[in-house]
Amino acid sequence: MATEAESIPEASGEEKKLSKKELNKLEKARKKAELKAQADANKAQEEAAAAAAEVDVSEGHYGTYGLIQSTERKDITFTNVADLTEALDGKEVWLRGRLHTSRVKGKTGFIVLRQQISTVQGTVFVGEAISKQFLKFVEKISKESIIDVYGLVKKVDQKIASCSQQDIEVAVQQVFVVSAAAQRLPLQIEDASRSADDSSDLVSVNLDTRLDNRVLDLRTPTSQAIFKIQAGICESFRNHLASRGFVEIHTPKIISAASEGGANVFEVSYFKRSAYLAQSPQLYKQMAIAGDFNKVYTIGSVFRAEDSNTHRHMTEFIGLDLEMAFSFHYHEVVEVIGGLLIDIFRHLQTNYGSEIEAVRKQYPSEPFLFTEKPLILHFTEGVKLLKEAGVEQGVEEDLSTANERLLGKLVREKYKTDYYILDKFPLAVRPFYTMPDPTDKRFSNSYDMFMRGEEILSGAQRIHDPDLLIERAKLHEVELPKIQAYIDAFKYGCPPHAGGGIGLERVTMLFLGTGNIRLSSLFPRDPKRLTP
Amino acid sequence: MATEAESIPEASGEEKKLSKKELNKLEKARKKAELKAQADANKAQEEAAAAAAEVDVSEGHYGTYGLIQSTERKDITFTNVADLTEALDGKEVWLRGRLHTSRVKGKTGFIVLRQQISTVQGTVFVGEAISKQFLKFVEKISKESIIDVYGLVKKVDQKIASCSQQDIEVAVQQVFVVSAAAQRLPLQIEDASRSADDSSDLVSVNLDTRLDNRVLDLRTPTSQAIFKIQAGICESFRNHLASRGFVEIHTPKIISAASEGGANVFEVSYFKRSAYLAQSPQLYKQMAIAGDFNKVYTIGSVFRAEDSNTHRHMTEFIGLDLEMAFSFHYHEVVEVIGGLLIDIFRHLQTNYGSEIEAVRKQYPSEPFLFTEKPLILHFTEGVKLLKEAGVEQGVEEDLSTANERLLGKLVREKYKTDYYILDKFPLAVRPFYTMPDPTDKRFSNSYDMFMRGEEILSGAQRIHDPDLLIERAKLHEVELPKIQAYIDAFKYGCPPHAGGGIGLERVTMLFLGTGNIRLSSLFPRDPKRLTP
Repeated sequence: MATEAESIPEASGEEKKLSKKELNKLEKARKKAELKAQADANKAQEEAAAAAAEVDVSEGHYGTYGLIQSTERKDITFTNVADLTEALDGKEVWLRGRLHTSRVKGKTGFIVLRQQISTVQGTVFVGEAISKQFLKFVEKISKESIIDVYGLVKKVDQKIASCSQQDIEVAVQQVFVVSAAAQRLPLQIEDASRSADDSSDLVSVNLDTRLDNRVLDLRTPTSQAIFKIQAGICESFRNHLASRGFVEIHTPKIISAASEGGANVFEVSYFKRSAYLAQSPQLYKQMAIAGDFNKVYTIGSVFRAEDSNTHRHMTEFIGLDLEMAFSFHYHEVVEVIGGLLIDIFRHLQTNYGSEIEAVRKQYPSEPFLFTEKPLILHFTEGVKLLKEAGVEQGVEEDLSTANERLLGKLVREKYKTDYYILDKFPLAVRPFYTMPDPTDKRFSNSYDMFMRGEEILSGAQRIHDPDLLIERAKLHEVELPKIQAYIDAFKYGCPPHAGGGIGLERVTMLFLGTGNIRLSSLFPRDPKRLTP
Repeated sequence: MATEAESIPEASGEEKKLSKKELNKLEKARKKAELKAQADANKAQEEAAAAAAEVDVSEGHYGTYGLIQSTERKDITFTNVADLTEALDGKEVWLRGRLHTSRVKGKTGFIVLRQQISTVQGTVFVGEAISKQFLKFVEKISKESIIDVYGLVKKVDQKIASCSQQDIEVAVQQVFVVSAAAQRLPLQIEDASRSADDSSDLVSVNLDTRLDNRVLDLRTPTSQAIFKIQAGICESFRNHLASRGFVEIHTPKIISAASEGGANVFEVSYFKRSAYLAQSPQLYKQMAIAGDFNKVYTIGSVFRAEDSNTHRHMTEFIGLDLEMAFSFHYHEVVEVIGGLLIDIFRHLQTNYGSEIEAVRKQYPSEPFLFTEKPLILHFTEGVKLLKEAGVEQGVEEDLSTANERLLGKLVREKYKTDYYILDKFPLAVRPFYTMPDPTDKRFSNSYDMFMRGEEILSGAQRIHDPDLLIERAKLHEVELPKIQAYIDAFKYGCPPHAGGGIGLERVTMLFLGTGNIRLSSLFPRDPKRLTP
């Protein structure tokens, strides 16, 4: 259904990839297209003038509303495109949506109206009720404009492959422009919806171009699906925890000192002094536990001033954090978090099947594997698996990104799961507030959780005793005055507790296998990107 | 049940209010108490030495666990204090809670065990199974320590007025300290729970002392209740909107330019350049609308660098924001928001009765009045009401705080509601992106919502046409290059839309009538407070 002009790449982003020769070729094609467009416009103008001289049988049935400034409340009920069914055959409906594509030849016009991920074909045939002028008007409406369409729903004999509504179309009787899009789009929705692996010669859009024009990119079925799934993750996280007695809290983002070490923290001018952006809600979640909230969760922004330009780092992301008092053993908490994640995966697979399918069309991936009960491996078991695969990994060393990935593969092969928990991380590689293992000095009561071989959660039993906390902080060379309020929180009795923080965008990326975290952030922030 | 020592005020906060004479008196009392405490300690030590010489029938039934480092998973099931009932009479239970108070005289001891807002009395009587040493141990446990208690549930003949469990007590058989509190507390939970209006001579705690020791202050029934109600507001907000097709989104907090004017914005060092903290998610919500999400909401931190030291301003708070495409008139959105708030109020009154009651004990207030359907007044009606009350108010001027309050009172008298919507604010006092009224140049399609005469929401139809947006931005002297990405968002078709942002802590404060917004922030931030 693409018109000729559409196959010419846009200037904004793709050129980066092209050679000079290709660029010249494109430039010629573009000039040619411009000349053609000009000629077409002239011709259209002449035709319009001629048409204007004729009597218009469609007068009043097409046009633009002008700016909708809330002058009146019209008595129009719109039908959702997704709700159109064969049962409506012969009924007249009002639809509001975007002009996805249009094609006019002689006296016949076809349009596709899009509403989020749903599309329906509309027909405009010049005849007794539809004037030439009407069709001319439709032809001139720019793609992505929002229009109101009134028309007759009709069953079709042959399925319409290019639309989500394949069994019906709408015989258009009225068209009004609600909001006109600029004639020239920086990217085509169809191009941005195309898989990068597409073997055809059709254009796809690179990530920077997408993100530069995020408002358009968000309209693709893939983006629409990703963010619905992401909302589903948050919903499931909250429901699971709320039904288990967790209380939702909110923690401050502006803090007085770089409490978790000092590196990778953004500085803020705070009236006449300096402050910092919280790298996690950790310390405040713990203080809520000391404040007797027992089990808490919070969803909010966290900030990392890391100059990491990778597929999985952002300077700002959403943390799904929880913290929980336990009776005697931090595994009471590990089991809650493990069950929580399994529940989230199940929720997505059960309720977001069509969205997952939509994403997979553009970003093919293996279905996400998980077990009924979470797999928990001791750190030494992970080391053993890596060594068996011929890879170096010290028992007291952190996992490198490469080893994380490899271990993910090995675990998948052996245990048939893309999600697992690695318990008992080396004490040396964890923050000062992590509880040491009681039996083996090398380890700690801490854990990471992984999806498809990448870390999505880091957590631990925290030290709830102020003296041990001070001892460990000194060992880590943390400046004690900077964490005074935090240490004080444990002076007046605090239950043993553990928790963790989940990166929302990482879970979204890894569940869907999209390969870049920026795709699961509405307006991503990284060291090089602060707009839009 | 207060011991003698408790009635002596603590050093930390209350002194600010006292005269020099009073201070001297207090100082004397304190010295006397210290001497007495020393004498008591000596005596106790002697007694303990004597007791140690005796055979201990309670050996192994009391002590401290030592640091709970997850050495083992004990086979103990704890009963919640709130779940104790007369039906458990004669049964033995394990309880974990804080030692709220204790009182030992001779061979009898009474303790109160507290778990969040629930309390139960425990008895420790020296006898066949309970040794003197056991009682000594219990006597020495510091208040606010977390302890495990094993004991026999017993019905009592006379109601125990000082506990939430009034019909039963627990005959203590075992006691273990889980986490010991420091002997000296910066504030007493009971003092911090007392109403400031208390006519007795008992001590109450001022706000700064509370907030300096927030972890202790959070343990009061009032704080526990406030934050459960606040979680209820968020839950109700989300449920109401999700069931109406709204999608939850997350917007960036770090932005490249001070998009809403430039004043009152925090600056952030962002690698080698400057960035800012978003004053609202407004522009990003709108871009999500232009990106076809149709109806969105977001809950997140917003930042205001205002040097306002009032009862209702904070530099960081939680915004409950929504934005919605509408068909023809922004009142479609006003009705949704109005219904949303009424639904939240109803949810709180229905499901949080005991929490509201708990808060009211410390902060007495009139029950919050609201109507079945939200009251919507035109700005000119507000002006008229004020004028009738003899107060100056221009039709094109913003409401002063005093006039807001007065208008709240007048509306309450006339319409019997503490919640109302003031529609059609003067165009001159609203931001550049506010849609002008189509019929009267003085006004705009914008609204504020009020609770008990204070603003809790500001909202409007936004300009969705890029040309009008540029025109209005120029008039407001906004630097166009700084809002380029925002303006661009409307170039490719955007439905008419409106929305608003609700201050979570304000709604909490005003619904409960607590009088200070800091009480409804877990760890409040204002120009002078950045810790804890």
